[in-house]
Parts: sequence; structure tokens; C-alpha cells
Amino acid sequence: MRTILFLTIFLVSTPFFSQNEDEKQIKAIYDKALTNGKAYDWLNHLSNQIGGRLSGSVQAQQAVDYTKAQLELLGLDKVWLQPVMVPKWVRGIPEFAYLETKPGLTTNVPICALGGSVATPDGGLKASVVEVQGIEDLEKLGKEAIQGKIVFYNRPMDPTKINTFSAYASCADQRYSGAAEASKYGAVGVIVRSLNLRLDDYPHTGSMAYGNIPVNQRIPAAAISTKGAELISTTLKLNPDAKFYFKQNCKQLDDVMSYNVIGEITGSTYPDEIMLVGGHLDSWDLGDGSHDDGAGCVQSMDVLRLLKETGYKPKRTLRVVLFMNEENGLRGGKEYAKVAQSKKEKHIFALESDSGGFTPRGFSIDADPENLKQIQGWRSLFEPYLIHLFQEGGSGADIGPLKNDGIVLAGLRPDSQRYFDHHHAENDTFEHVNKRELELGAATMASLVYLIDKYGTVPPTKIKG
Amino acid sequence: MRTILFLTIFLVSTPFFSQNEDEKQIKAIYDKALTNGKAYDWLNHLSNQIGGRLSGSVQAQQAVDYTKAQLELLGLDKVWLQPVMVPKWVRGIPEFAYLETKPGLTTNVPICALGGSVATPDGGLKASVVEVQGIEDLEKLGKEAIQGKIVFYNRPMDPTKINTFSAYASCADQRYSGAAEASKYGAVGVIVRSLNLRLDDYPHTGSMAYGNIPVNQRIPAAAISTKGAELISTTLKLNPDAKFYFKQNCKQLDDVMSYNVIGEITGSTYPDEIMLVGGHLDSWDLGDGSHDDGAGCVQSMDVLRLLKETGYKPKRTLRVVLFMNEENGLRGGKEYAKVAQSKKEKHIFALESDSGGFTPRGFSIDADPENLKQIQGWRSLFEPYLIHLFQEGGSGADIGPLKNDGIVLAGLRPDSQRYFDHHHAENDTFEHVNKRELELGAATMASLVYLIDKYGTVPPTKIKG
Repeated sequence: MRTILFLTIFLVSTPFFSQNEDEKQIKAIYDKALTNGKAYDWLNHLSNQIGGRLSGSVQAQQAVDYTKAQLELLGLDKVWLQPVMVPKWVRGIPEFAYLETKPGLTTNVPICALGGSVATPDGGLKASVVEVQGIEDLEKLGKEAIQGKIVFYNRPMDPTKINTFSAYASCADQRYSGAAEASKYGAVGVIVRSLNLRLDDYPHTGSMAYGNIPVNQRIPAAAISTKGAELISTTLKLNPDAKFYFKQNCKQLDDVMSYNVIGEITGSTYPDEIMLVGGHLDSWDLGDGSHDDGAGCVQSMDVLRLLKETGYKPKRTLRVVLFMNEENGLRGGKEYAKVAQSKKEKHIFALESDSGGFTPRGFSIDADPENLKQIQGWRSLFEPYLIHLFQEGGSGADIGPLKNDGIVLAGLRPDSQRYFDHHHAENDTFEHVNKRELELGAATMASLVYLIDKYGTVPPTKIKG
Repeated sequence: MRTILFLTIFLVSTPFFSQNEDEKQIKAIYDKALTNGKAYDWLNHLSNQIGGRLSGSVQAQQAVDYTKAQLELLGLDKVWLQPVMVPKWVRGIPEFAYLETKPGLTTNVPICALGGSVATPDGGLKASVVEVQGIEDLEKLGKEAIQGKIVFYNRPMDPTKINTFSAYASCADQRYSGAAEASKYGAVGVIVRSLNLRLDDYPHTGSMAYGNIPVNQRIPAAAISTKGAELISTTLKLNPDAKFYFKQNCKQLDDVMSYNVIGEITGSTYPDEIMLVGGHLDSWDLGDGSHDDGAGCVQSMDVLRLLKETGYKPKRTLRVVLFMNEENGLRGGKEYAKVAQSKKEKHIFALESDSGGFTPRGFSIDADPENLKQIQGWRSLFEPYLIHLFQEGGSGADIGPLKNDGIVLAGLRPDSQRYFDHHHAENDTFEHVNKRELELGAATMASLVYLIDKYGTVPPTKIKG
């Protein structure tokens, strides 16, 4: 009995890692990030010298050149560009829209084309409006009610969800598939309530797709601000005959060549085991893409620098990848995975930061139970930095294509309350990123990378065995 | 062995509270706060219709009137004003300062008088500058080096402290006592680096005191922006003879009458056991006091409303107290405790929100181990709302005077990374408060109040027994 008790206490109280050395290394990482971080300076350049970086744009290419040059300055073992063809969609002249309650009586509504949308006719498009709470309402209403009209998707994000990404996920189908679905019922256009929890005047763009709808049957799609959505909804209740007008001349051009930007520190002991940190370098065009995802890029770059500066030499190969075209195609993420597979590269870990540069709260982890358990076992090391979340499931869009049995995928999880105030909108700008919050994110990522490098992941053979 | 094992499992897995009912009530509180909160509207009025609420000012009185009227609209059992005499310090015309590297060559420096400071002579004050890293440097330098000079306190906040309040606490002596100490060595004035982790152009005011220094020996004290501090420090290294000029005509007037604003829901079962929630209604005058501490006031008000609106009737008396004069005197907090003692009121719990309206992370708890343990035992109920901190020690300045053996004191702990960017400065304004973050704070407070009301605190007799 006594022996058993002793053993139990021993097993419970002795962690399976060298707590003290790890504490010191992690403290060194956080201290360095908070006193001598580079992420904020890099972001300043990306945001204020370059700006919005829509795939295929001049700014996207400038960002490729800039980040490659900055990675080269870090003295990594290797820095290169990985070519990838990306779609090139252009917004054209600023969109314009109004609500017409009766001829001559109009109210302007803040609007922006959704990424990938076709233009309206040259003179714009005016039609009656049918408000729906989602795609499922279309069938209930039927062709008769929708034909010749503009469908107005107005299901708001659920404010009671503490994780605002869940609220986003429950609404994004309206934006992504709303036009394709509405066109099947004869709609002439769609407008979508911005995916924003706040009532304000910013329209939030984002990707949409027409699926297999023939080109000549595609209808224009735009986002309107949340206040605009409230205005239209209220007006329609009083006056169901109100008409909506909008004009946009966006255009899908031919694909163009672009690049993923990659840098690596080659592993000293296991160079064939690759750990990846990354974000996406492209952004939407309305703001400067500071939170989405300039923040994730500069944090990922700083992970390598922080480890170098604290004198840590990775045993495994540590690679930073700044993916191109997450927003409207995911071509960079797909290409990276394709090349990795063709080269038979062995990725054991990939961590993406693509949820804004806010105070980090922890990680989401897409892994088998053994690996999840190992990471959760490091919880106490993160406690001093107020990192508490080690939740199962979810990582990042760009690293998703790498998924296989042998890789642990993870996503940095910052505080999500303010993210959708800025997401894909004109106000996703540098002044809304706090330096310390950004730096804490980089340090949190670097600390997890350090632990993965030191202890490795649990390989699939061991799990199966 | 088997019985012991069974018992162990039973004890571990069965919480000592009705988890399910509590989960439901807490969810109802958060849902209500996020869908139908009032805190943000109230704060909008306090910040944008009233503004900075320095003790003794017209705005402070407007805030008393407004919040009393709003509490009356909530249909509480009792709303009243508690009179308290407060100091009245006025800033006068905007301060002005420059650094003079040689006669005629000057650079303006953003500056503001510290609260409680005397004015400079009418024509301002110009003198050489001696830079120190803290009060302890004065003795090392001695009277000879300091006499006739302006002492420049330039110890920055430590960026490596994750809790920025710790960094603040390690520097605030320079601001509070810097003038009193420097005057003992013959200094003619002091300027203090703003207590701000960020490099920017905002001077941050705050309280200071002269202790027992006679009135005619008091020297003027001001805060300069962090960028101003860097400028002066760098300049002094190149040119130790550079002079600093500043002019301020602030003044301490006679004390005036003001009020704590109090409202209560009388307890249904134990009306004599009082639970208090509160913040302070006064603020500094430079910004509009949105984070410090408009946020804490409106959150505290909403605690009572949220419990009412979710149909919860407290068994104990729940009181909201909006304290006057936390910033430069703590008269409201002291008066409240004095009256409570004279009336032999039994306060079992007091919770203050005075750390900004940012995403709540948890609580600090100033209580005996038994009560601390009880609260920490509720941890899992807060987990879905990402509330993880239940740390020992610290509550709030206004409720501090209530401390005795029979009371549990607590402070709401929001994310602290951005707080000192705004604290006591011109940019502590409404647009820097996020609605959801504010509401989550109110819900977090209301949830703890609910649990304390339902389960009570562990009384001192039981602890001693």
C-alpha cells in the first residue's frame, strides 16, 4: 500500500520533461519577444509601406520581395520562393449602392463586392429585395418569390458564442455560396450582411464561389455593412416594395504567377523531420491586412529569429512558410503540400497563426490523442504567460492540405472578441494591432515549437502499436 | 482497497455544488449580457455626454446624477447618495514644456501636471536636468548634484512582466513620491516618465503627494510622454547642460461635497449579509475615463440588472457602489467603509472592477485559504467563458478599506496588455472599449456574485473552528 502510494505520488509529481530547463528557455523567448521583438516593425512595413496584398496584385509581389529579403537578413540556412499560380480578381472602381424606398427617395448603403464576384451591368442593377435568414429559406420561398429579385442574406452572427470564430462559421455559407444558390431560383443579385458582430458602417468582403454555375448565369454578390443590413431589414418591413441598387465592376482576370516565401533553419540532429510555422501573406484589398494575416506572417518569421537569438539550435528542421492566396483560392497551401509530398518530405508538425494579432490564449490542436495529451502535458509551462487553451480540433487553412497520420497540426488561438470588427474590412489596419499582444503571440508559438523540437511528436507507429 | 477507490472517485467526480443549475444560470447571465447588455450604452453616456470626471468637477456631479437616475430606472429596492467631502484639484490652462539644447534651440515635449501638484511660477520654470532611475538614486547623487535642478525620473516599466500591473507597481513610486523626495535635495521641480509601456506622445497623469513637506517647499511635478522621456534622456547624454522648461498653473482648492452612488437589491433570506460590486465614478480629466473606471462602474451596474433580468432573486443583499475620488484621495472608499462600520453592516463579499474594460481573464481574490479554495472550486463553471485566473491576493482600491476577517475581497482581472496605453491619458476614451469585452466582464462579475449569493462565503468562525 505504501509502495503504491509512493509510486503514485512520484508519477504524478515528476513531469516527463526537464521542467526547469524548459522554464528558462521559454522565459528567454518571451523576454526576447517583449524587449527585442521584430514582428511589430515587420508588420509596420507590410501594412504601412505596402498595404493590402490581394493575390496577384503588385502589393502581393512587394510583400513577397520584402519578406524574402527580411528572412535573408536573419541568416537562416536557406531562403527560397516556391512558385504558385494564383487567381487574380480585381475590385475595379469603388462600389456604390442605395436603398430606394420610393422613386427619388434613396439612402446610400456601404457596400463592397465579394471576392470572386462578377460585376453588375455597366449601369448597375436595381431590383426588389427578398430578405432571407439563410440558404435554406430559398427553397421555402421558391422561384416565384425570388425570380428577378435581389436576395438579401441577413442571418447575423450569434453574439452568445464566446469563440467568435464559431459564430462566423455558422454564417459564412451565406457569403460563400449565397450567390450560386440564389441564382438557381432566378435571383439577379445577392447582398450579404457583413460577417461582423458589431453594428457599424464597414462592409466586410470575403471569398465566394459560383460552383458549377455557367458563366452567363452568374449573378453579382456584395457585402453590406451591418448597419446597412439593419436599415434594409427595417425598411422592408415597412415597405416591402423598396428597391436596392448596386453597381460594381470587379473582374476575374487570368491566373498569374506568385510565390510562397519559405525560410528554414536546418535541423542539427534530425534534418529530415520538418516543423513548419506560418501564416498567409496575401490579404484582402480593403484594409492593409494587419490582423489577417500580416500578424501571422510576422509572428511566424519571429519564431525562427527568437529561437536563434536565444541561442537555441533546433534538432529538427524549422521552416517558416508565408503562404500565398489563402483568401481566395488556397493555392499556396495546396502547392506547398503537393511539393512536400512529391519530395517525400516528412512534416511532423505545422503551426499556423491566422486568427489575428490579439493576446494569445492558447492553441487548437488537430492530432491523435497521444500527441494531444503530450502537448496538454506542457500546460504548466505556459501558465505564467496566461496561455490556458489547449483545445482539440482545428489548425489553419494553409496547413490543412498537409494533414496525414504522421503530422500534428496546430493553430494559435488569440483572443477572438475584436477579430470580426476588422476581418476583411477597411479597418483591418496597423493601428488596431497592439505591439505587446502581437509579440506575446510570437513568443507563444516559439515556445511550442521549442518543446516539439526538444521532445518530438509521438510517431504514428508508436500510436498504432 | 476497492471501497477506498470508489470513495475517491466519488469525491473527485461529484462537485459540491449543483453544477447543472449553475451552468444554466451562468449561461443565462452571459447570454443576456451579450445580447441585451446595458453597460456599453451607459458607458457611452458617461464618456461622450459627460466626459472626464475629476473629483469635485461639474462632470463628476453630472455622473453622480446620471448613474443615480439610471439605477432608479432599474427598479432596485433602494438607491441613494452617500455624501463625502472630496479634494478639488484643477489643472488650469494646458501645460507647456520644451527641452532647450542651447539658447534658442528648443523642442516641445508633451507634458501634463501630476494630480495634486503645485503650479510652476507664473513665467514657468527652467533649469538643468538630472536624470535618475528612481528615488534611490537621489541619495547617491546627493544635494550637490540635485540642488536647483529638475529631477527627471526615467525608470521605465518592465516590458517582460506579463501582468502589466506588476510593471506599473514597480514604477509608480517615482510619480507618487518623486517630488516630495527630490525637494529634500533641493530640486526645483520633477518630471516623470509616463507609466506607459508603449512609446508614444501621450503624457499620463496620476496622483502624487507631498507628504509632510511644508507648503512653501513644494515643487511642481509633471509627467512627460514616453517619447519625450527618450528624447530628453538621449539629449542629456550628448549635452548634459540641456535645460528643461515647463509651465503649469494647476491648483488645489478647498474640499467640496460629493457622493458615492449606491443601489441595492435587498436579500430575500439573509438581508443583513451584504455583497458589494463596484467601481469608481471619478476619473482623471485628460481623457473621458472610459477604461478607468467608467467600465468598472457600468459593469457593476449591469451585474444587478443581469441578475434581475435572468430572474434571479439574491438571498443576500446585493449592493452596487460607484465610489467617488479613487484617483486622488480614496475618500469615497474610506467613507463607505466608515459608514458601514458605524452601522455595523456585515459585508461578506466585495468585488471591484477597476482594471479596464478588456476581455476578462478571471479574478484576484483577497481571502483566507478556505474561501479562496471555494471560489477556485467553481473554476469549471467559468471555463466555457475562457475565465481561467483565480489568483490569490489583490482586489480593488475602493473596497480595500472594508477589509476584515469576515469579508472576501476580489477584483475582476481583464487582459492587461493594452491598459497602460490609455491609463490616465488623453486616449482613455470610449472608442478604445470593445462592447463585447466590456459585456463579458459584466457577465463574469455577475456569475461570481451569483455563486457567492447561492453558496455563501465560509464564515470566519468556521475557518477558525
